Amino acid sequence: MQTIEWQNGSIRMIDQTRLPQELVYLDIDNVDDLVAAIKRLSVRGAPALGVAGAYGVALAAHKLKGDEFDEAVVRIRNARPTAVNLGVGVDLALASLEDGPEAVLATARALAEQERESSWAMGRLGADLLTDLGSAPLRVMTICNTGGLATVERGTALSVILELHDRKELTEALPLETRPLLQGGRLTTWELGQYGAPHRLLVDSAGPALLSRGLADAVVIGADRVAANGDTANKIGSYSLALAASRAEVPFVVVAPETTIDMNTPDGASIEIEDRGPTEVAGFGSARVAPDDTDAVNPAFDVTPVDLITALVTDKRVVRFDRGETL
Amino acid sequence: MQTIEWQNGSIRMIDQTRLPQELVYLDIDNVDDLVAAIKRLSVRGAPALGVAGAYGVALAAHKLKGDEFDEAVVRIRNARPTAVNLGVGVDLALASLEDGPEAVLATARALAEQERESSWAMGRLGADLLTDLGSAPLRVMTICNTGGLATVERGTALSVILELHDRKELTEALPLETRPLLQGGRLTTWELGQYGAPHRLLVDSAGPALLSRGLADAVVIGADRVAANGDTANKIGSYSLALAASRAEVPFVVVAPETTIDMNTPDGASIEIEDRGPTEVAGFGSARVAPDDTDAVNPAFDVTPVDLITALVTDKRVVRFDRGETL
Repeated sequence: MQTIEWQNGSIRMIDQTRLPQELVYLDIDNVDDLVAAIKRLSVRGAPALGVAGAYGVALAAHKLKGDEFDEAVVRIRNARPTAVNLGVGVDLALASLEDGPEAVLATARALAEQERESSWAMGRLGADLLTDLGSAPLRVMTICNTGGLATVERGTALSVILELHDRKELTEALPLETRPLLQGGRLTTWELGQYGAPHRLLVDSAGPALLSRGLADAVVIGADRVAANGDTANKIGSYSLALAASRAEVPFVVVAPETTIDMNTPDGASIEIEDRGPTEVAGFGSARVAPDDTDAVNPAFDVTPVDLITALVTDKRVVRFDRGETL
Repeated sequence: MQTIEWQNGSIRMIDQTRLPQELVYLDIDNVDDLVAAIKRLSVRGAPALGVAGAYGVALAAHKLKGDEFDEAVVRIRNARPTAVNLGVGVDLALASLEDGPEAVLATARALAEQERESSWAMGRLGADLLTDLGSAPLRVMTICNTGGLATVERGTALSVILELHDRKELTEALPLETRPLLQGGRLTTWELGQYGAPHRLLVDSAGPALLSRGLADAVVIGADRVAANGDTANKIGSYSLALAASRAEVPFVVVAPETTIDMNTPDGASIEIEDRGPTEVAGFGSARVAPDDTDAVNPAFDVTPVDLITALVTDKRVVRFDRGETL
């Protein structure tokens, strides 16, 4: 199952806005439709957006020329201004433009393949680590959506869970629903279901409680950013799992590609926390919850200090913080 | 603002099913309507249900005789079979039956007054403790609904927050929304709004993260049951706040009446955890979230070990676990 790929001159992608109710593929053969799909979050997640940007330039290079091409590239790049990877994918593809549209497409395909291989590598390294640390089969807790839907295939932390499942070393996955946007409840459950991996959903605050009762053997999470000292920013709720895993002496493992490590950020205290405002907290989808004028604190992520992290698994290596290893 | 009271021969109660959208009072002058109100959760919370049961017997004693009276009492008692306090309130009122309907009513009123005084006492003792432990004004985090809606007036943990507000020692309350049933988002925000107490709502997993960033000065929670050693069962999510408060060196205080202490339960490990099934987790209010066949783990509460609890505040005393005091 690939989230985004090039097929018969079009970009074929899963329409994530329709999940988990139905699996619909979009076949996109023009830049207008691609920009609209990116804007309405039909495709999301840093690696997937990078690939979407590169394939978008390939699409434009096949169909447009001169000013029309230049203007299309600007619109792709600006479809989501804060998504750094989107621009990176666009620039990578543009670098092959002199060699013609097929060269641009080849570059985009290479990026997609590289993302795909990176996910599989993290899955293998992470599964090896978890089976070293605990006695398989394992019950593995996770948060947010770190699956193929955010990448090209398999994902980061979810790739580890899927690899364990392939090896018949997974008892069950325990995904947290991940308020406020419920990526765990909507997307991770759906991906696990697609692979036939056994799983039970939790409200976020049940995660620490289950760890305290010995009902999980490991926690795996993704990362927004890993600081130079190993402190890790990830989806809000990661920190509470790390606290509970530490007390329960359960391995807590971060899974993220090398590109997530930011050696220019010395530690977690240097990471600014984005607040996303009250609307997401006061309701979900069409359901209103709180009184109309309710204010909220809505941090998008939290920071887990490195002393609570057993190891970092990247696409290249395993860093055992619990043994004093550093980045 | 009283959640339930006797007025002009009727039971007057806030219809909690209409909150937070609108404040509607029910004036109930017959047993059929009372039983229906209890069944559809127009009144909820152990102390409030006890008072509802006692007032219900008073209502029946004024209107019914013989078999009709007996049958009405059975129906009140069975309106929510698992609500222990409902039966306790019924029995208390029945004990005055020999002295006539007015004696029954006087007993019910005395129970309501006793619950009311108990809440105010917890508020005063808790506010005294928190201002001893930290420098006011305080930012106070809490979970679930422990307010007047679950009691008769003011509540348990929320009574402490309201007392601080009355004393102008509250910077803000930080209620957690409390998935899956969202009592914090729906009810606690509404109660705080009624009293004009400043507050901002959080998703549950933001609580530990805010504690780690120094954004709260104390955590106060209610309790379902306090074991003989001080281990405390309370709404799922309490444990993760206790972990984070302990690491941040922020006071973590349990507020519950003496009747919540169960000396027959030696410790938290002896408390059985009810699982409420997948339906509540798979949806959010009226919105569906997870794929249709998603299974879930849905523990109703968790257990916080006494080593993470600074103190227990009851209606009679403060027990400083952090100083080695015991029950």
